[in-house]
Amino acid sequence: MAYSPGPKGLTWLDATQGFASGGLTPRAYLERCLAIIADREPVVRAWVCLDEGGAKAAAEESTQRWKAGRPLSPIDGMPIGIKDLIETRNLPTQMGCKAYDGHFPTRDSAMIQALRGAGAIILGKTVTTELGQSEPGPTTNPWNPRHTPGGSSSGSAAAVAAGMVPAAIGTQVGGSIIRPASFCGNIALKPTQGAIHRGERQGSSQSTAGVHANALADMWAVAIEIANRAGGDPGTLGLMGPSRCPQPTRPERLAVLETEGWAMLDDDSRAAFEAQVEALRARGVEVLRRGDHPWIEALERSIANAKAVTNVVVGFENRWSLLELERNKPGGLSARALARLRISEKLTVADYRAALAEREAMRAALARLAPLVDALVAPASPGPAPVWDPKAPDAESNPRPTGDIACNAATSALGCPAVTLPLMAVRGLPFGLQVIAQPHADARATAIAGWILSN
Amino acid sequence: MAYSPGPKGLTWLDATQGFASGGLTPRAYLERCLAIIADREPVVRAWVCLDEGGAKAAAEESTQRWKAGRPLSPIDGMPIGIKDLIETRNLPTQMGCKAYDGHFPTRDSAMIQALRGAGAIILGKTVTTELGQSEPGPTTNPWNPRHTPGGSSSGSAAAVAAGMVPAAIGTQVGGSIIRPASFCGNIALKPTQGAIHRGERQGSSQSTAGVHANALADMWAVAIEIANRAGGDPGTLGLMGPSRCPQPTRPERLAVLETEGWAMLDDDSRAAFEAQVEALRARGVEVLRRGDHPWIEALERSIANAKAVTNVVVGFENRWSLLELERNKPGGLSARALARLRISEKLTVADYRAALAEREAMRAALARLAPLVDALVAPASPGPAPVWDPKAPDAESNPRPTGDIACNAATSALGCPAVTLPLMAVRGLPFGLQVIAQPHADARATAIAGWILSN
Repeated sequence: MAYSPGPKGLTWLDATQGFASGGLTPRAYLERCLAIIADREPVVRAWVCLDEGGAKAAAEESTQRWKAGRPLSPIDGMPIGIKDLIETRNLPTQMGCKAYDGHFPTRDSAMIQALRGAGAIILGKTVTTELGQSEPGPTTNPWNPRHTPGGSSSGSAAAVAAGMVPAAIGTQVGGSIIRPASFCGNIALKPTQGAIHRGERQGSSQSTAGVHANALADMWAVAIEIANRAGGDPGTLGLMGPSRCPQPTRPERLAVLETEGWAMLDDDSRAAFEAQVEALRARGVEVLRRGDHPWIEALERSIANAKAVTNVVVGFENRWSLLELERNKPGGLSARALARLRISEKLTVADYRAALAEREAMRAALARLAPLVDALVAPASPGPAPVWDPKAPDAESNPRPTGDIACNAATSALGCPAVTLPLMAVRGLPFGLQVIAQPHADARATAIAGWILSN
Repeated sequence: MAYSPGPKGLTWLDATQGFASGGLTPRAYLERCLAIIADREPVVRAWVCLDEGGAKAAAEESTQRWKAGRPLSPIDGMPIGIKDLIETRNLPTQMGCKAYDGHFPTRDSAMIQALRGAGAIILGKTVTTELGQSEPGPTTNPWNPRHTPGGSSSGSAAAVAAGMVPAAIGTQVGGSIIRPASFCGNIALKPTQGAIHRGERQGSSQSTAGVHANALADMWAVAIEIANRAGGDPGTLGLMGPSRCPQPTRPERLAVLETEGWAMLDDDSRAAFEAQVEALRARGVEVLRRGDHPWIEALERSIANAKAVTNVVVGFENRWSLLELERNKPGGLSARALARLRISEKLTVADYRAALAEREAMRAALARLAPLVDALVAPASPGPAPVWDPKAPDAESNPRPTGDIACNAATSALGCPAVTLPLMAVRGLPFGLQVIAQPHADARATAIAGWILSN
């Protein structure tokens, strides 16, 4: 099945109009999800585990609330997939890591409590790469099973792309929400750093929870319903904005951001992106490029080492828990994880502080653009999903089998929101364009994304 | 045993001179600690558990390193007490909470890994109030067992004051390091928010790890040896400063900070504090008061609701994990904890955001003082330790049996460093004076504290 941009997949908010009129019910909607899962899961392998019984009971309750005209929120009854890094009361949290086999803390993280408060249905846990790092899980790309779905939110991306659920939760430290969304053809939000409460995993200063969906309005609804209940990470204001998806807004001026991934684009991918830029210009938007203004060039210079900065920050921050995990669970970490740990345990506090300082400088360079452009656009990944063959001779030594973070490390380190849109197709596979805004301008990024989509 | 200010207790860095010359060894030093514990623990009850065997083996190894002239750091061999909120590989982490009875994650948090890297000896876990909140443990005040040692770092404060260990780790969200240090007559550092890596408990934006000691140099040594290895909380620079305790530095100008605790001082306590202010003036320091400058008055107005702000911030942030704990462990939380939880679960995101905004305004008001004064001084608690009788008729309903946070909520919310000094005695009990500085000026606060002590 070759990808071509356009409306697709399972969406939610449209369906709720049927709930109100009685023509459709959350219970029937769930059955449709389960049928698609039954059909496609054998190849896609997006799920670690499902709670079908719990989901059916919850959908029944939701059906009654809609019938009574008293849904808890617009996402009451929405079946949702949860990345298996996030703790859930009804299902284990095994984090794609052998060391956590059978780990079942039976508690909901703040985000899950908020989703339940809004009536959403925690249908199952989706595959993550090992601890959200590099070692891939079994998930394949719904558009072509020879290709990676991306990572680390592999299962969330694939489940949404395959139409199994209208939305799923992912997390991103380097490129783990936006890259798999680009590879799978989803719409996705990597919000401002910390804008959606991460729950128990607060050990990283660059980890952010976000949403995959097939419709921008669904994406926004999930994000804002969480934030309106649980807020963001401790000490942050959390995602703010309207309860319904921000109206499409035409930007006056955008800039193209050339990340480290820019040089990795092949000719087809670059041509596809340039066609998008031309289309924006044709619709009357001024689009600045690197050469057009020194502040854009300064930002691009500042993010030239974003991958290295991210590796130092994340490596140093994660090493404390990983070292103890290695000690307590021999054989519980993959060779790929151990190789990274051996590198990161050599980092000193001085290395870490230098990386934080470089990250601060990146953020200052982005802030300077606030009066210059409404948002930035960039490829969401260095082209479409690469082939990944776990039986290939070099599979073990491939450091990034789920693709490269080169288009995402900068936005992760910048702590700014990014919305990716499945606007492009390259060699029959989806390829995303991301809209990047200033920190806390998540609603603006979404509004501009909506306008770009509305073409 | 009535308290009078002056040198006391077990100190470390002086002893290490004996290690170098061979006249004393870490092994012998440990034996002295264990003897004092055997003598005083039946009444003081500072410890949840001890690892005597592990400590003796570690002290032996340290003795060999000192003999060979190759100690890992100045605190190599130092026996240290760890508040039972912090995870340790060798001992359970039960958090003073029935729901965590027997909880033993067998892993070291980053801070403990750093302490071990410096050669320090994790001698045991010290009593905390339940989850660092209000429900007291069994610890008594070493100066009079009818009085509270303060909380939540009850055991760390009491162990140091009783001379059982030269230093112990505490944590503070509202007033949990500085208040018990004031009540027990310790020197203590509540550093800049996040300046010492907290490890696994990152769910609060206002929790900070710090150090109790009997000597300023010991206090600093422990703090900087941790920070030089593990840094601060993820995303922060962590404590920075010289490897040895900052030299005593005479301030040009100080301000008295009247916190919410000011109105709670009895006549004796107020007179003791005013005598300290007069002594500073007599030594040539200009000391400004509320009426002397509008910026000081503005800061005091901004912190007038610090307790309420802290209660909202902490209540909202903690409720997610507490609700799940209540659900999973019926009977595992005290009546006092449940009463607080019932209040905090009524808080909305809007309430939380309003409290964060008020906290930001407080921080801005403090920042304005940077060019005006070198530091601020204030009582470290609203007088000496109150009596606490767990068998009194109103014991169950006393919301704050370990004393009031009124002198500490502001500095906690401000995220700024505070060093308390056991300079005063009221009715035979210790009473601390705290030196408060701008965020990240931990070394300056310590240097000024050293000068005040040097009188």
